[in-house]
Amino acid sequence: MTYCVAMLLDTGMVFLSDSRTNAGVDLISTFRKTVVFKKDGERVIVLQTSGNLAISQAVVSILSEQINANAEGGHLLSVSTLFDAALLAGAAMREVERRDGEALKHAGLEFNANLVVGGQIRGEAPRLFSVYPAGNFIEATADTTYFQLGEAKYGRPIIDRVISRSSSLTQAIKCALISMDSTIRSNLSVGLPLDLVVLRRDQHSVATHMSIDESNPYFGGIRNAWGDALRHAFVQLPEPEWLKER
Amino acid sequence: MTYCVAMLLDTGMVFLSDSRTNAGVDLISTFRKTVVFKKDGERVIVLQTSGNLAISQAVVSILSEQINANAEGGHLLSVSTLFDAALLAGAAMREVERRDGEALKHAGLEFNANLVVGGQIRGEAPRLFSVYPAGNFIEATADTTYFQLGEAKYGRPIIDRVISRSSSLTQAIKCALISMDSTIRSNLSVGLPLDLVVLRRDQHSVATHMSIDESNPYFGGIRNAWGDALRHAFVQLPEPEWLKER
Repeated sequence: MTYCVAMLLDTGMVFLSDSRTNAGVDLISTFRKTVVFKKDGERVIVLQTSGNLAISQAVVSILSEQINANAEGGHLLSVSTLFDAALLAGAAMREVERRDGEALKHAGLEFNANLVVGGQIRGEAPRLFSVYPAGNFIEATADTTYFQLGEAKYGRPIIDRVISRSSSLTQAIKCALISMDSTIRSNLSVGLPLDLVVLRRDQHSVATHMSIDESNPYFGGIRNAWGDALRHAFVQLPEPEWLKER
Repeated sequence: MTYCVAMLLDTGMVFLSDSRTNAGVDLISTFRKTVVFKKDGERVIVLQTSGNLAISQAVVSILSEQINANAEGGHLLSVSTLFDAALLAGAAMREVERRDGEALKHAGLEFNANLVVGGQIRGEAPRLFSVYPAGNFIEATADTTYFQLGEAKYGRPIIDRVISRSSSLTQAIKCALISMDSTIRSNLSVGLPLDLVVLRRDQHSVATHMSIDESNPYFGGIRNAWGDALRHAFVQLPEPEWLKER
């Protein structure tokens, strides 16, 4: 499986993804699930992928090929809105479905892949889209601070509690890493290294793009400190006296 | 959906379940998912159910009928081990499958129900079983502190971090309620009121069996205090200075 989270804030965007891919538990590999398309000073578009790796790689290939070929129908570095970028991603998904869908069904496999497409193109605010296997998509609105892909449930409660549009980028990074850590601890199919991409609003360039593994001191510190803080908070909460009294 | 958690500790057992049942989002009802079978001074057996309500109600009916009819093949108040109780629950599941399985498949529905069977019968230690839709089951061993049913993922990280076999009953109740609260906050299909059952080891009676709703002061206090503690712990953790420096 996979866990990706993408947050849309007043001051920018944070994208975090793991890199574990498994076909059963005996074939586990590391594949990056985040791809960045950019033209510095003009646009950054970040793609996160989940689901069948063959499908998501094919989608990324199609989108990259369109750029290399300067495709007539437009490509991620030529479209003028993020909405058009999401349309291209959805169309690429449909192209892969047309090519592979029948064979997958024949093999008893679902056509299963989801994308997050986010970023900013000069002239627009930052935008964030979630693209479904059918190629249709939804956009994050004022009430939506984040989209997740894959094993989303373990890491969701902490985001729901602490992040809003007005959170800072550093708060969002911290929260995304805690959310990822909770997921990794409870689910074997999600693992290091992580890909972190941060965009500052209106800068039209990548503020940070880094790989985070066991040796990253910040992530290591956060993991331990968060575990300690949770246990401490838990101990501090009152226990049910009504049970003791009986 | 449903969320149930059952914890097996050195000093007893804690069972917590929600009560929301939904057939789609426009037919939401309240049904209790915890049933207690007991003979004071000799045994307490607690059943938690998830999945298709018609199936789990049918299973409970069969097990209750066996008791009322003092069935020759044994019943939950006559068997001498929890293992035999789990066998009876699994057999009841199979009986319902034989009766309804084909019709469900015809209607395009999966035969979907899971049970937790736990408790203590005099002469044995407390035991905890998880029964699958096929009627087979697994038992919690020394490395297993808890089983969950239904929407298990949201509430799992906190249990993994703070509960072990040596935790006290009051710690386990506190943790189960926090785990439930995290689930309710992130998933509409899980809701109040809750059923809490607590057994003390070797007492062979129910220490606590209560319904918990919005008006319960302990649960209300825990919910608020836990949210505050999480936000406080989050704020206390260091932010990524490397982002600020750039």
